[in-house]
Amino acid sequence: MDREKIRLSFLKSALTLDNTFIDMEGVKQWLNKQQEEVSVKVDKIRFSDMDQWFFDLTDGNLRHKSGQFFSIDGLHVKTNWGLVKEWSQPIINQPEIGFLGIITREIDGILYFLMQAKIEPGNINHVQLSPTLQATKSNYTRVHQGRKPLYLDYFLSRDRHRVLVDQLQSEQGGRFYKKRNRNIIIRVEGDDDVPVYENFAWLTLGQIKKLMQIDNTVNMDTRTVISAIPYGDAPPGTGGSLDLPKVSPTAPGEFKKGMLASTLISGKGLFDFDEILSWLADLKTKYELHVEKIPLKNVKNWVITDQQIHHEDNKYFRILPVSVEIDNREVTRWTQPLLEPAQEGLSAFIVKKIDDVYHFLVQAKVECGNLDILELAPTVQCLTGNYRDTKTGTLPFLDEVLNVEPGRVRFDTLQSEEGGRFFREQNRNMLIEAGDNFNETLPENYIWMTLAQLNTFLKFNNYLNIQSRSLLSAIDFI
Amino acid sequence: MDREKIRLSFLKSALTLDNTFIDMEGVKQWLNKQQEEVSVKVDKIRFSDMDQWFFDLTDGNLRHKSGQFFSIDGLHVKTNWGLVKEWSQPIINQPEIGFLGIITREIDGILYFLMQAKIEPGNINHVQLSPTLQATKSNYTRVHQGRKPLYLDYFLSRDRHRVLVDQLQSEQGGRFYKKRNRNIIIRVEGDDDVPVYENFAWLTLGQIKKLMQIDNTVNMDTRTVISAIPYGDAPPGTGGSLDLPKVSPTAPGEFKKGMLASTLISGKGLFDFDEILSWLADLKTKYELHVEKIPLKNVKNWVITDQQIHHEDNKYFRILPVSVEIDNREVTRWTQPLLEPAQEGLSAFIVKKIDDVYHFLVQAKVECGNLDILELAPTVQCLTGNYRDTKTGTLPFLDEVLNVEPGRVRFDTLQSEEGGRFFREQNRNMLIEAGDNFNETLPENYIWMTLAQLNTFLKFNNYLNIQSRSLLSAIDFI
Repeated sequence: MDREKIRLSFLKSALTLDNTFIDMEGVKQWLNKQQEEVSVKVDKIRFSDMDQWFFDLTDGNLRHKSGQFFSIDGLHVKTNWGLVKEWSQPIINQPEIGFLGIITREIDGILYFLMQAKIEPGNINHVQLSPTLQATKSNYTRVHQGRKPLYLDYFLSRDRHRVLVDQLQSEQGGRFYKKRNRNIIIRVEGDDDVPVYENFAWLTLGQIKKLMQIDNTVNMDTRTVISAIPYGDAPPGTGGSLDLPKVSPTAPGEFKKGMLASTLISGKGLFDFDEILSWLADLKTKYELHVEKIPLKNVKNWVITDQQIHHEDNKYFRILPVSVEIDNREVTRWTQPLLEPAQEGLSAFIVKKIDDVYHFLVQAKVECGNLDILELAPTVQCLTGNYRDTKTGTLPFLDEVLNVEPGRVRFDTLQSEEGGRFFREQNRNMLIEAGDNFNETLPENYIWMTLAQLNTFLKFNNYLNIQSRSLLSAIDFI
Repeated sequence: MDREKIRLSFLKSALTLDNTFIDMEGVKQWLNKQQEEVSVKVDKIRFSDMDQWFFDLTDGNLRHKSGQFFSIDGLHVKTNWGLVKEWSQPIINQPEIGFLGIITREIDGILYFLMQAKIEPGNINHVQLSPTLQATKSNYTRVHQGRKPLYLDYFLSRDRHRVLVDQLQSEQGGRFYKKRNRNIIIRVEGDDDVPVYENFAWLTLGQIKKLMQIDNTVNMDTRTVISAIPYGDAPPGTGGSLDLPKVSPTAPGEFKKGMLASTLISGKGLFDFDEILSWLADLKTKYELHVEKIPLKNVKNWVITDQQIHHEDNKYFRILPVSVEIDNREVTRWTQPLLEPAQEGLSAFIVKKIDDVYHFLVQAKVECGNLDILELAPTVQCLTGNYRDTKTGTLPFLDEVLNVEPGRVRFDTLQSEEGGRFFREQNRNMLIEAGDNFNETLPENYIWMTLAQLNTFLKFNNYLNIQSRSLLSAIDFI
């Protein structure tokens, strides 16, 4: 397969807002209409009133009677990383790899993405823009009552289609136990006339990226899949044989709000890739992470009542039993646990031009659910409550992010976490350009990387964490 | 750092047998002399007679009183891979990342490797060629009685040296629980006059590779470090500005016993790298590996006596308590457990020229101690006892390997496993060139890859298993 051609077709779609089917206003109206037509009722209930969910007497873990979906287990953690060396906590355990898949199709020379307006109970605004397919392994292997997820067959019979992106990517390491999803983008070839079901629409990548600049509009699953897209390094707007659309991209080297065209420049990084691998090998050798699954009932400093599972100081998050009623012509009801964070969070990359190439200040971070000790995280990643408590400057670069001059903010949007597991969680996502006088000595677990280097890590499993991927997905070229 | 220059300096050393300090005859005599001068006595004893090692009453696990070194734990395994879906077994647990490090130095334009003639109790022939440094984390962080490993400081104060290779690589997934070592090669710069202690010598990479063609001479630790070396793709022998030595390499495209010059050719693979990643994502999604550490005493079908821990059918391996006495001017004595395999094993890559580029037939294989479900393994990897029992043809490509015409064998040597943990274990390592009529349909977990593609996977953690790395290290260019 000609990968360079694929990369350029992604780039071309990212530079396109003109959509044969629906323009930006139309997309927003379509999403609003979906919001209005649906009624979602989420009520906090008691664990004892849950249907099918129960605390297993043997270990106190919260699980579904079918053995499917997920369970809330306990985790005991020992590490030589950070200030707290040992703790236990509840953790979401879902030991299957699910599909997050997008179908694309070239129409009139532009790559279109088949996106879904999807309701999730935990979403602040109910409906968000989702991939074509979100399916757990239970969904697609042990299909009940013939209710197969829409478009599933396109991803199972991949021989007929081109696989453009196909990677296993991690979920939140602080909440999930080694959870991963398969992020996959396929391109349907030729005459295959993909049906467009209700709540689905063909969008350009440029439209999706513009929608990311509106709070809580593009869901986390879409963002992680989009983050994996590689782009050709042809200067945008030059077009040439690929007939790139005549938009007026930011000139390379410039940087506007929400725009980062010049990161496309394929330039030499401050460190070469082998040096970065060595930095990472050194940290993975130095820092240890020993985790052990323990019964939920044995988790220390956490309280289990009939209403919630919470930390005794109400920090971090709590697990809530809820009943969900979705009224969308038909009425669907179920109960499930949702995780509610104690505060909003902040994810921010500091970006800086070094020798005319944009570099990202990347943090290597240990989180208890990580498969491989540490993953590459944004410059700052924290719960806001945490940094309000500990204004002692212990969190590197937090001051730079919080006190940034407005002129240096390139992206600043609230983004939702996955509404199937998290209750109304939104995190502030920021891209910030450092000034010329930003010349900090980096702590040992920080390093400058180019976008191309981050993209290479993205190809391999469990290098970039979901917070950093969410930020990379927001990079916009027009 | 100029990586291409480094790759070519590795290649140049691999093409060099002329050593200013010691020629091939000299190396063999030196190793023989080390063998003769040492007396190693390994006696099978009883667990109850071990010093410092004990079965912990709480879980029956076998461990050292210091809490250091390693322990023998139990593992319970569930998987949807292979014929046996559920079992438990003893496993070596050593949750630290150790150093396997080689110091190199350029002398008269040739890169020399500082190698050690090292005694290990489990070695068949006692002394084998080892890296400059083999050190567990306990060795280098909690140093006892001032006995710091030789050359350790070169690897800790890396700022003064060039890091040429630095990767975390896995150990045997069937025996170790997620064990890894840090494989590192540094180059000492300029005037730093590295002392050469007793039992150490400077060798060229060409010499090391030639020694690999003698049974049980180059230890596993050396082989895994060497396997990580990338080579420049300049046609060997052309020299040019890099002044490559005037050896007469195998012509590109040819293939002699122990020689594989043409794999250097940087040609297009049958599959591109993204296709291989997609193949791997598909398998990792399909196959599940659920492991749980359990008390050793609860491992089913295994018997613990005072003499050994063994499978009730005497299959797989057994754990033996031994006393070791090494007399090498001073006498050193200790006791430890060693793992003795039930039979010799076989590791073989089938190699085939496809469109004039050599491709390796790579197997994705689940092993219970793997960090990430499956790793890339040789075409055939098994215990010989296993295939003698099950001559039903269930093991793919075994017949091709066992019935190969002698003219197609490119490498065939017995190689030892790590003598610090394994008792006289040797495995047959083979590289076999498939005939033109070899046109098998591949099982879903097999794929053809070029050497360049394998080298790329090698840079990232936990992709190539130790058996495939051992075979790659044997590839010789002269």
